[in-house]
Amino acid sequence: MSGAVSINPLHLVAVVGGTHGNEMSGVTLIRHWLKDSTELMRDTFTAVPLLANPKATEKCVRYYERDLNRCFTRDILFSSSESEDEPYEVKRAREINMVFGPRGSIKAYEVILDLHNTTSNMGVCLIISGTHRTLEMHACHYIQTHLPSFDPQIYVYTEPGSELYDLTSVGKAGIGFELGPQPQGVARADILQNMKTLVKVTLDFVNQLNQGMEFPAFEVDVFQRVGHVQFPLSPDGAISAVVHPSLQDQDFSVLHPGDPAFLSLDNKIIPYTGKQPIYPVFVNEAAYYEKNIAFIVAEKIQVSVPALTSISEKRTL
Amino acid sequence: MSGAVSINPLHLVAVVGGTHGNEMSGVTLIRHWLKDSTELMRDTFTAVPLLANPKATEKCVRYYERDLNRCFTRDILFSSSESEDEPYEVKRAREINMVFGPRGSIKAYEVILDLHNTTSNMGVCLIISGTHRTLEMHACHYIQTHLPSFDPQIYVYTEPGSELYDLTSVGKAGIGFELGPQPQGVARADILQNMKTLVKVTLDFVNQLNQGMEFPAFEVDVFQRVGHVQFPLSPDGAISAVVHPSLQDQDFSVLHPGDPAFLSLDNKIIPYTGKQPIYPVFVNEAAYYEKNIAFIVAEKIQVSVPALTSISEKRTL
Repeated sequence: MSGAVSINPLHLVAVVGGTHGNEMSGVTLIRHWLKDSTELMRDTFTAVPLLANPKATEKCVRYYERDLNRCFTRDILFSSSESEDEPYEVKRAREINMVFGPRGSIKAYEVILDLHNTTSNMGVCLIISGTHRTLEMHACHYIQTHLPSFDPQIYVYTEPGSELYDLTSVGKAGIGFELGPQPQGVARADILQNMKTLVKVTLDFVNQLNQGMEFPAFEVDVFQRVGHVQFPLSPDGAISAVVHPSLQDQDFSVLHPGDPAFLSLDNKIIPYTGKQPIYPVFVNEAAYYEKNIAFIVAEKIQVSVPALTSISEKRTL
Repeated sequence: MSGAVSINPLHLVAVVGGTHGNEMSGVTLIRHWLKDSTELMRDTFTAVPLLANPKATEKCVRYYERDLNRCFTRDILFSSSESEDEPYEVKRAREINMVFGPRGSIKAYEVILDLHNTTSNMGVCLIISGTHRTLEMHACHYIQTHLPSFDPQIYVYTEPGSELYDLTSVGKAGIGFELGPQPQGVARADILQNMKTLVKVTLDFVNQLNQGMEFPAFEVDVFQRVGHVQFPLSPDGAISAVVHPSLQDQDFSVLHPGDPAFLSLDNKIIPYTGKQPIYPVFVNEAAYYEKNIAFIVAEKIQVSVPALTSISEKRTL
């Protein structure tokens, strides 16, 4: 196949849950797989389960001292100035980087899947750090093709030019699965089943890639984060309006300038004041209240992805 | 009207939010009413807004050291052995009892409305401590009559013979409004509007009662708590099954012995093993995970409520 990207087979695969300790699909599945990892076995590899933030998981909170999924920055991972009184998650990020990375090194894990939930109506969202990543794009496309009833959306979490900071960035490739709506601290059976199916299908993809299957080029729409919108605040800093009912639960649907964005506590409609249509995501996510973020702003872009195959297995065919 | 219960007009009315600091309908409304209480004014009284647990509200957690809404017990409220190192919520319960009670005293508030949210699909649930309480029963019936689209259900939270322990027990009468599903830490506009409407209609009822309106006798179904069901646990104490999809979101619907209750992580159906049909409520409520409670068991009973009127205002007619 001309123009195909060829990569080595992938043997180091990790499945991570509890990066946020109150997102229960991942917490529940990883606890299960730590006891019985049969479902993570494939012919060409066995994925390793990891409970990323045990202290936060134990307390059923997003984080213990600092958001772990913002701790995988260059400064934290490669700083030599470690100290005893660092936040728990800073130490934990360094530990995870040593075992599953180090980031950018030859020994880093080849694929890391990180299991998340959101209180927003995000459905099945596949999170990647950039559209130039051919392996991740093919994995997402494989999921979209094999699970059409899930209607999976692809979302790029890094704004253009910004630094990586999430757990999957430790690996050579990584995808976050963001399923919702699900309240923090609750495991819903339907979402748990969907999360399990997503992991299964993704491991199947890696296995087929390792076995020499060729995946043709394709084009696909992805949602690129470009900013965020904060809640209106009163002079004392309290939130003075809630997400408007017509925007609530409408993640991935277009929002035009002038459309209702908020409803004030005295029942006034506050419109979206951006200059062009956007796609709101993470609408009314509980974890973003501490930053007064009401929703994330994304643009829809079309991406062309080249064909993909694995080198070594092709030689053996 | 023969057989009518006659009571004095009600002038001391409180509306409480933030008893649980991450239940955002009440937190948001009370913060609003503390700045502008116009909506709490009626001809015959003005309701007082109270943010019950400021420390938990500030941190957006259910409680700071102990569940405040379990602290209004006789032992805590009337114990003389206070000490400096008591949990914050124990002190706070005593403070609230001094200002809005003391419970059982002549100076106690006459009506306390306490605003709650649940992650369960409870819709609009009106919580009372007993069906013998004529005033509360009439208030609930008034709500049911005036807001039929809300399909409000009446729920008795105390098991027969058990002690009172919730915040509303400080007042001479009290109702909890339990609205869901809403994730912890999230304020949804639709649920906020419903909560505001519930408070409005209940204050209207008190006002009409004070103005001499007579409320005829009626019969009504209520849900009486009789127990609870725990999650199946593995030997290490972890939850080994989740609420079955056919039970999830089915609060107030009948569950028969043998119906699916749980789905284990290896996909086995675990049936409900009770001896008779029951009505599950608070199905898969996030806050109950710390006690491994999967749902509360209620029975449906029919209650006859006598007519109600207010004494003093009748004299002036």
